Amino acid sequence: MLEKLKQQVFNANLELPKHNLVTFTWGNVSGVDRDAGLMVIKPSGVDYETMQAEDMVVVSLTTGEVIEGKYKPSSDTDTHLALYQAFPEIGGIVHTHSRHATIWAQAGLPLSALGTTHADYFYGEIPCTRQMTESEIAGEYERETGNVIIETFKQLGISAKDIPAVLVHSHGPFAWGKDADNAVHNAVVLEEIAYMNLFTRQLTPKIGDMQQELLDKHYLRKHGKNAYYGQK
Amino acid sequence: MLEKLKQQVFNANLELPKHNLVTFTWGNVSGVDRDAGLMVIKPSGVDYETMQAEDMVVVSLTTGEVIEGKYKPSSDTDTHLALYQAFPEIGGIVHTHSRHATIWAQAGLPLSALGTTHADYFYGEIPCTRQMTESEIAGEYERETGNVIIETFKQLGISAKDIPAVLVHSHGPFAWGKDADNAVHNAVVLEEIAYMNLFTRQLTPKIGDMQQELLDKHYLRKHGKNAYYGQK
Amino acid sequence: MLEKLKQQVFNANLELPKHNLVTFTWGNVSGVDRDAGLMVIKPSGVDYETMQAEDMVVVSLTTGEVIEGKYKPSSDTDTHLALYQAFPEIGGIVHTHSRHATIWAQAGLPLSALGTTHADYFYGEIPCTRQMTESEIAGEYERETGNVIIETFKQLGISAKDIPAVLVHSHGPFAWGKDADNAVHNAVVLEEIAYMNLFTRQLTPKIGDMQQELLDKHYLRKHGKNAYYGQK
Amino acid sequence: MLEKLKQQVFNANLELPKHNLVTFTWGNVSGVDRDAGLMVIKPSGVDYETMQAEDMVVVSLTTGEVIEGKYKPSSDTDTHLALYQAFPEIGGIVHTHSRHATIWAQAGLPLSALGTTHADYFYGEIPCTRQMTESEIAGEYERETGNVIIETFKQLGISAKDIPAVLVHSHGPFAWGKDADNAVHNAVVLEEIAYMNLFTRQLTPKIGDMQQELLDKHYLRKHGKNAYYGQK
Repeated sequence: MLEKLKQQVFNANLELPKHNLVTFTWGNVSGVDRDAGLMVIKPSGVDYETMQAEDMVVVSLTTGEVIEGKYKPSSDTDTHLALYQAFPEIGGIVHTHSRHATIWAQAGLPLSALGTTHADYFYGEIPCTRQMTESEIAGEYERETGNVIIETFKQLGISAKDIPAVLVHSHGPFAWGKDADNAVHNAVVLEEIAYMNLFTRQLTPKIGDMQQELLDKHYLRKHGKNAYYGQK
Repeated sequence: MLEKLKQQVFNANLELPKHNLVTFTWGNVSGVDRDAGLMVIKPSGVDYETMQAEDMVVVSLTTGEVIEGKYKPSSDTDTHLALYQAFPEIGGIVHTHSRHATIWAQAGLPLSALGTTHADYFYGEIPCTRQMTESEIAGEYERETGNVIIETFKQLGISAKDIPAVLVHSHGPFAWGKDADNAVHNAVVLEEIAYMNLFTRQLTPKIGDMQQELLDKHYLRKHGKNAYYGQK
Repeated sequence: MLEKLKQQVFNANLELPKHNLVTFTWGNVSGVDRDAGLMVIKPSGVDYETMQAEDMVVVSLTTGEVIEGKYKPSSDTDTHLALYQAFPEIGGIVHTHSRHATIWAQAGLPLSALGTTHADYFYGEIPCTRQMTESEIAGEYERETGNVIIETFKQLGISAKDIPAVLVHSHGPFAWGKDADNAVHNAVVLEEIAYMNLFTRQLTPKIGDMQQELLDKHYLRKHGKNAYYGQK
Repeated sequence: MLEKLKQQVFNANLELPKHNLVTFTWGNVSGVDRDAGLMVIKPSGVDYETMQAEDMVVVSLTTGEVIEGKYKPSSDTDTHLALYQAFPEIGGIVHTHSRHATIWAQAGLPLSALGTTHADYFYGEIPCTRQMTESEIAGEYERETGNVIIETFKQLGISAKDIPAVLVHSHGPFAWGKDADNAVHNAVVLEEIAYMNLFTRQLTPKIGDMQQELLDKHYLRKHGKNAYYGQK
């Protein structure tokens, strides 16, 4: 069942330790088959070193029910589901505790666009959610984590396509993309940006956002109908 | 004698360089067999590259006497013994000079709980001991190092099970767990937290502790009778 | 066509991930054959892991036309061409988003000469360009990126030979040298210097430039007619 | 000639890239045979990857004359000779531009003893030399680099045996030991200490030296006639 997607999701999960984004089992990647209405996700708390493609868990995109799989799905499954449901344009999601993105999440601060590395992938500031309320935490916590992300994007009037990542307050980053592999790619870039912003701000504490025209130029030379980067 | 425990302790010691927690021979892991009243510990100053499982030293848990082993046990043996005697719920202990945990120990500052990475493993602030007194240092120094850790936990009214690590002032971290492998696992997490706290505090110097309810939620979803993380 | 130069440029490109200067495809190296009036450069957005020497693209040094190659050349091709045209003494150019050099570029600050590591390779401060204007960004952006570098060197009265690198404001570093390999060598040193300057300044915020006589001594013992470092 | 010493010095040089203390050829290790009155040192500017034991250069300890070797000796040869002549108790010397030790050297600041990692190897503060004078730089520069180190130790009344490293102002670290291997060992520790001091000071800007009794305890449990660390 969904062998190709399972393989993709499995491969994307293995990219996490390769890019030093995870320690132990602290991360999870999922991918979606929207036609089938199914999500494939990493099992909960299984070692990257012994994990196999067939260990990926298939979950209903609407009900969250496990459709296939001998393991329990990631404990963050409901966050993934909430995001897929709210953001129809995304095909893969990744959650990590990568060091520098997590540092910004702990500080509760967004990642301003400070240079072209940022602009090549994210069309503006990467937001940090508000703190979750006591009742959100006590309730359907993982689902509410998704909801607070969705609320953040709505309130800021930004799209998940243009800003494919978020910091969850006191927690860490989620990133997404057109598929599982692309989501991990964006998570790697997010970590790079988080590192560089930390020390850029230390050098120039009063730094403002980069020039809007430079942000436009770099984002649009890689994305959208007039893109000219790469071999397309 | 205790071949299985020796192998476990040996393996756990090898995890230290693998996780970049030690330079040269600067670390030691022990494990305990409480029924036999024995502790198995790394020999003192022996290279990780040439060390064998059979080089582990067997020591009496009560008297500290070497029961078996061609080498001298770690110079920190008496600290391990003090902790095993005071904390009956622990089965493995690790001491390292891992960079960022040591930085906080040198600064004499505790590690506040600032995010869910912390909350997944430690149920509150990780304390730093007071400085040792002149007579403690001049006396049974390694035993007294254990005593000051024990005193710290008593005075703060915290349990070794809920907070499986400590910073020893001007020295470095000790971590523990249900066995040697779990102790090393906690030492790795401690180092991650120490790194992230350092730069989180630089971004937000006045940051307070994370929300208590979020700390509860994350700690308790991985520990205790209602845990639902992993495949349990 | 230019097989030897293609091999050199290919090898130099592979040095970038080896020295941790690039993430994904974020870098490009070129080399020039001035007699033939041709530049060889990395293709745009191609993976380092699958790239072959024969994938390098041959471009006219004067017109920028692709002379040979199945791929599109790097999107930064026009920046490379502008620099080769303005700086006749250079034979190789590299562009990266290496972490610490990019941090300084984002901060819009030059790299002062603070020690002999700097002085061994760069004969004085490594400048950061001004921000580009709206019309430069909207126009021939990559060519204008080259122009603002050239303007910077002219206004400061420094030579590309003595200072073989620059930071482009809000973007990242370019480095160059007598050939592609030497350009990468200088990019590695630049990244080292950027790292060390960041934390040297944190330790001593009011630090000034190093002594001029020490700068002279170290630069000149490795460069110029009285050099005595190495086996020459 | 001196085959065993050449092998030792060669091996010690290879430890430098292994421990990430050098970039390219930026480091050199020497060892001495005091009975023969000879020093063996790395050749100048030769790659670590292709270097052989037989490439080590043999130099007279008194005159600096090359006695054997097809290559020129390290450009820092005269600094090594000055130190061997002044410090009869040392048998190996290493010079690197390791990142964090160099940061402190660039800042012109000594490394205070802030914890037991320091105390295990260095019996007090690791000094930074004064800046060199214009005439010292213009004169026998490498010899004078040695002289300013020697002057620093004399003026502070400290011994090269108790403090086996120094920072040369605006330059970088030298470390030494009983032989080439031990010198590299001390250089590795120095780099660790330099890293940890940087961030310890950021956490606690007003931190003073560690307790003298703790410094005594740790240094003396590893050095001197009452040492009890390791298998001795």
